[in-house]
Amino acid sequence: MRVVIIGADGYLGWPLMMRLSGRGHRVMGIDSEARRSWVREFDSSSAIPITGMAERLAAWSKVAPDSMAVFQLMDCRDHDRLCELLSLFGPDAIVHLGEMPSAPFSMADYGRCLETHQNNVEGTLSLLWAMRAHCPDAHLIKLGTMGEYGTPNVDIPEGWFDLEYGGRKTRALFPRSPGSFYHATKVHDSTNVEFACRAWGLRSTDIMQGVVYGTRTAEMSGDFKLQTRFDFDAVFGTVINRFVAQALIGRVLTPYGSGEQKRGFLPLRDSMDCLTIAVENPPAAAGEYRVFNQLDTSYSMLELAAEVGRVAHERTGVMPAIEKLQNPRVEASRHHYNPESKHLRDLGYKPTGDLPGQLREMFEDLAPWVGRIETYAGAIDPQVRWRTP
Amino acid sequence: MRVVIIGADGYLGWPLMMRLSGRGHRVMGIDSEARRSWVREFDSSSAIPITGMAERLAAWSKVAPDSMAVFQLMDCRDHDRLCELLSLFGPDAIVHLGEMPSAPFSMADYGRCLETHQNNVEGTLSLLWAMRAHCPDAHLIKLGTMGEYGTPNVDIPEGWFDLEYGGRKTRALFPRSPGSFYHATKVHDSTNVEFACRAWGLRSTDIMQGVVYGTRTAEMSGDFKLQTRFDFDAVFGTVINRFVAQALIGRVLTPYGSGEQKRGFLPLRDSMDCLTIAVENPPAAAGEYRVFNQLDTSYSMLELAAEVGRVAHERTGVMPAIEKLQNPRVEASRHHYNPESKHLRDLGYKPTGDLPGQLREMFEDLAPWVGRIETYAGAIDPQVRWRTP
Repeated sequence: MRVVIIGADGYLGWPLMMRLSGRGHRVMGIDSEARRSWVREFDSSSAIPITGMAERLAAWSKVAPDSMAVFQLMDCRDHDRLCELLSLFGPDAIVHLGEMPSAPFSMADYGRCLETHQNNVEGTLSLLWAMRAHCPDAHLIKLGTMGEYGTPNVDIPEGWFDLEYGGRKTRALFPRSPGSFYHATKVHDSTNVEFACRAWGLRSTDIMQGVVYGTRTAEMSGDFKLQTRFDFDAVFGTVINRFVAQALIGRVLTPYGSGEQKRGFLPLRDSMDCLTIAVENPPAAAGEYRVFNQLDTSYSMLELAAEVGRVAHERTGVMPAIEKLQNPRVEASRHHYNPESKHLRDLGYKPTGDLPGQLREMFEDLAPWVGRIETYAGAIDPQVRWRTP
Repeated sequence: MRVVIIGADGYLGWPLMMRLSGRGHRVMGIDSEARRSWVREFDSSSAIPITGMAERLAAWSKVAPDSMAVFQLMDCRDHDRLCELLSLFGPDAIVHLGEMPSAPFSMADYGRCLETHQNNVEGTLSLLWAMRAHCPDAHLIKLGTMGEYGTPNVDIPEGWFDLEYGGRKTRALFPRSPGSFYHATKVHDSTNVEFACRAWGLRSTDIMQGVVYGTRTAEMSGDFKLQTRFDFDAVFGTVINRFVAQALIGRVLTPYGSGEQKRGFLPLRDSMDCLTIAVENPPAAAGEYRVFNQLDTSYSMLELAAEVGRVAHERTGVMPAIEKLQNPRVEASRHHYNPESKHLRDLGYKPTGDLPGQLREMFEDLAPWVGRIETYAGAIDPQVRWRTP
């Protein structure tokens, strides 16, 4: 297949470039490289140093000489250029990972909130109109987040469900309840993408992804240039990353609030497996908008801290302390959490399911870069608060 | 009360300036006057000629010398200026009517779709952040649309409802299903406003308004400068307006598609009554996000065409023909439609409920301007199609 990956320079985008091109797909990656500067703006850096895309692709072509992967530096909001590129390349599938992915970034101030909306919502709009004009039969795989749903007091279906009200039934999308303006932009995207499928006959898979963790996929053997970025700061680092970074530099692990919030998680290699399954199994019908809840297991923050602590103890004999911080976010501290996640399993997804094993790999892959984590350790504590105290 | 009206130059904004200032509130209107140029871009014009805001306010101060109403020409996306203004004025309530209100405009092309998102979603975001910083206790009355809900096969609750799924219950917002990118921006706004209430403790009334028709409110006696704009083109004119304009110039009335689509409607005077009720009855608690379905009666397009036809026949002895056009939109042609609308009635809203009487007034008020309708009659037929044929 011919596949465009938007956000090819990101944590998921780069390993997906390798995965899909390694499986014989022709891949064109595009990225504005905005993520690199956003992380710098918050005085942080990827713990694992990453080279530029040209060097990455050169390293990959040595490991996988038959793979076909090219890269274009551009913002998908550059609509004319995007149209030209889609028209020339003629993709069968477009994986859109090119969004600003941080809740605290979007809550920091008005300017960052606006930038989040512009990057995410306008980028997706630019893509939808370009697809309509130049590849209306292509399959859009759009990265959303499990955070679109919030934490309702019922199980979470995969997008569509039968809604009953006043003795009648209707097929509807499960209501969303985002926990930040970042999450809200993903909800806006879902609304726009579903509408474009219904109005224009586009076809799309909207991925409600859990929190991804891990440092390794099958493609990252040998050359360190093949590794992907690893953020551990309070703005771009997700919870497992922050705990592992804290453990590596001998700090206490700091869950927010009660620590009893639960979220869905999956390892990086599972995310690659799932996205590949989505790409290789497009919706059959024009106009189909389907939703996949892409996650393996749900954990509470305290369960994760304990698990990271155990693996750190194995390695060093020292068990890191756990210290709850005042929660900078506004979120339910205790809640029901039971998302359904069947569609990807039906298509063949086999969860790795080995959290301690994944954590051991993370410690191993990050060990050479402890000095870099120490350099940027000041960025681990949360600075952005949802409410001014 | 001190009230800011955003979109004070619009069809609803101007009569609301008069209504609220006439009731003793201190009103500051702001508007970018973008609507005037958007209508010109589509080769149309308000049938009723409208003067500039300075002349309008001068005319109003003669009729209501004790009223306090001022106007600022500005775009609410000018965030620094908006902050300064809110900080100086210290509003108790902000009525946000300042959005691009046309479905066909948003579907015309990528540029117009983007402009719709930027004007509507970014304008509301600018306002939310400004309120958080400068008037967090003010009440935001935000104009949404009944079109956010689409046409589900169940009754439509007023925003919140008890969702049952898998044997459990949760309080949730009723799922939205917008019929155009314009409607989608209103859904995005609802998502952002509800989140801002939940995260920041703002308070808001989100108005899901039906289609407003009519040319007259109690304040528009005497001076023609007090009248409000009346659009009848395919882009900015709603269905009753288009039918009345067609009848006035002896054209056939042209419902789209089957004509059996149903929507909720209310007269302009009812819209003013409802918005006034919302302003004067704010939510008691910080953080409250409430939704009002603001409509009187639901009609099908064919029922409306027949009603307009009857009133035209009364006046001229000639019954206009009705000719269905191929529907330029993508929408259900036959569907259940039963929105609940109780909150405003509980607060004292008494529907006028007299469609023929309202239509007679419209014919009367528009009679002097038949020549203007003829001049711009080319803009009545739809040019924008949701799907390219």
